[in-house]
Amino acid sequence: PDATARDGASARNAQLTKPPAALGRLEDLAQWYAGWRGDARPMIDRPQVIVFAGNHGVAARGVSAFPAEVTVQMVANFRAGGAAINQLADCFGATIDIHALSLDTPTADFTTAPAMTEAELLEALQTGWSALDPQADLLVVGEMGIANTTVAAALAAGLYGGTGADWVGRGTGVDDAGLALKAQVVDEALALHRDALSDPVECLRRLGGRELAAMTGAILAARHFGVPVLLDGFPCCAAAAVLHRMAPGGLDHCAAGHRSAEAAHGRLLDQFAMEPLLSLGLRLGEGSGAALAIGVLKGAVACHSGMATFAEAGVSDGDAP
Amino acid sequence: PDATARDGASARNAQLTKPPAALGRLEDLAQWYAGWRGDARPMIDRPQVIVFAGNHGVAARGVSAFPAEVTVQMVANFRAGGAAINQLADCFGATIDIHALSLDTPTADFTTAPAMTEAELLEALQTGWSALDPQADLLVVGEMGIANTTVAAALAAGLYGGTGADWVGRGTGVDDAGLALKAQVVDEALALHRDALSDPVECLRRLGGRELAAMTGAILAARHFGVPVLLDGFPCCAAAAVLHRMAPGGLDHCAAGHRSAEAAHGRLLDQFAMEPLLSLGLRLGEGSGAALAIGVLKGAVACHSGMATFAEAGVSDGDAP
Repeated sequence: PDATARDGASARNAQLTKPPAALGRLEDLAQWYAGWRGDARPMIDRPQVIVFAGNHGVAARGVSAFPAEVTVQMVANFRAGGAAINQLADCFGATIDIHALSLDTPTADFTTAPAMTEAELLEALQTGWSALDPQADLLVVGEMGIANTTVAAALAAGLYGGTGADWVGRGTGVDDAGLALKAQVVDEALALHRDALSDPVECLRRLGGRELAAMTGAILAARHFGVPVLLDGFPCCAAAAVLHRMAPGGLDHCAAGHRSAEAAHGRLLDQFAMEPLLSLGLRLGEGSGAALAIGVLKGAVACHSGMATFAEAGVSDGDAP
Repeated sequence: PDATARDGASARNAQLTKPPAALGRLEDLAQWYAGWRGDARPMIDRPQVIVFAGNHGVAARGVSAFPAEVTVQMVANFRAGGAAINQLADCFGATIDIHALSLDTPTADFTTAPAMTEAELLEALQTGWSALDPQADLLVVGEMGIANTTVAAALAAGLYGGTGADWVGRGTGVDDAGLALKAQVVDEALALHRDALSDPVECLRRLGGRELAAMTGAILAARHFGVPVLLDGFPCCAAAAVLHRMAPGGLDHCAAGHRSAEAAHGRLLDQFAMEPLLSLGLRLGEGSGAALAIGVLKGAVACHSGMATFAEAGVSDGDAP
């Protein structure tokens, strides 16, 4: 981040017509945003939402409450403007781009082989990197992919340790038997790949999926281009975790948009030492929780950059004799 | 609320292209809003923010970190568009109206007399009632009034019991001695008026203030005109509490926009059995926390009314054989 911009934002914040710290976390958020934008008095005019979709070989194990064809059906719904993320992007003035990654060619079932070849991983990372609009001033990445909470659980376990049971949840709504199956499938994958998990990128190749790798690529591109990121739920944070494991500060340009009802999401946020902006029980994916948080961040930045100072407004600042 | 609209909204919600309950509290919010608007598929197009300002005789006791002249200075700031609430109203497409209530004539010091005469109370309630735009489709009421967290503490204690220490907080930033003084002042007021507190409206007259009474009037008018309300922080909720004490369901058309850093605010929300939408450490007043929550409610209603159904989108709903 740009220390000069951040210091300028901090100095400005102290002059605004409000008691010190009365805007709570909005003040921290605005200064964080200012630092990453390199502008002490920024605006948010061009938020970008990108939804990546992928299919997973492991879906054939029956780990989702929905059939795999729902991925392509939902992509059509995104493109027609009918999904939750479309309404939220529109509500907060964000553009939305949809990238479907080789849906007809699911990844390999990671209980029997690495999910992706090196070429497939690279293609997915590049798709994500290239999907970022370098002119965007805020990024939300979301995903769609039947079975991808199982994939996210495997990736999180690969990156941070623990067993399947530590990281799986009900996803779109599996029953107790489905939950046990998800844990078993993750444990099988961890056993197969256990000797190759020390490299986070190799972890992503073996245990991840195309839409997760694309999110990793997009979040990395956002760092390169100085675009702050609002993180969504469990699959998004599992993709982000690859960068966190590569470098401790790898997610400093990101804030947690919300806390998902998927319990393992909270475990990842704890790893990131991030407190989410919203906690409203969402567990949809698509970037929906992060998109909802665009409103909070926009409000924070609007206050920071739009408010009058005590001097401008002729308001006593409370320190007057 | 309109049970037909609410039932229609519930039926629609079950058809939308998402797993059941995957939008968490957004689904409940949209159905609550639909019921109070009498429309199973509503939109939010005309949110109204109203800020009421008043001065308080008890300010002369030194219970605020800021001098009383800040009230009129901040009113000028609101009118010039320089305060936090102006930025937030603009950010979420809300109109904003400012009503300054007899700032040159503070209420009486309630440690020595009732804060308002019956005529003054009635005028303030009427100002609030009349301030509502009956064409608005969402209301946020906020306040400005040096010393009004002390007033809100007295009113809350009058309505729900307890002592000054139970209800006072640091407001705009008093120190420990200021906090003790606030508690003492509230206790003095409770002792003076103790035999007249069983009627919530009389409580408001004796222990309240003009901007609080105006908020009470506006929230009541919103009920009459079918306009859902997002409640702001402690003074707003103390004003709302008058209606809650008059009738148990008196705030059913309201939702809690946020949880303030002023601890007693959480006690009031517990009385209302309301879970706030946001908890970001704000303690500014002006309606700022509730205005920030307009974004959440707009997002909820946009999803509800804008999403495609499974049938419309041709998406498998997970129950298919």
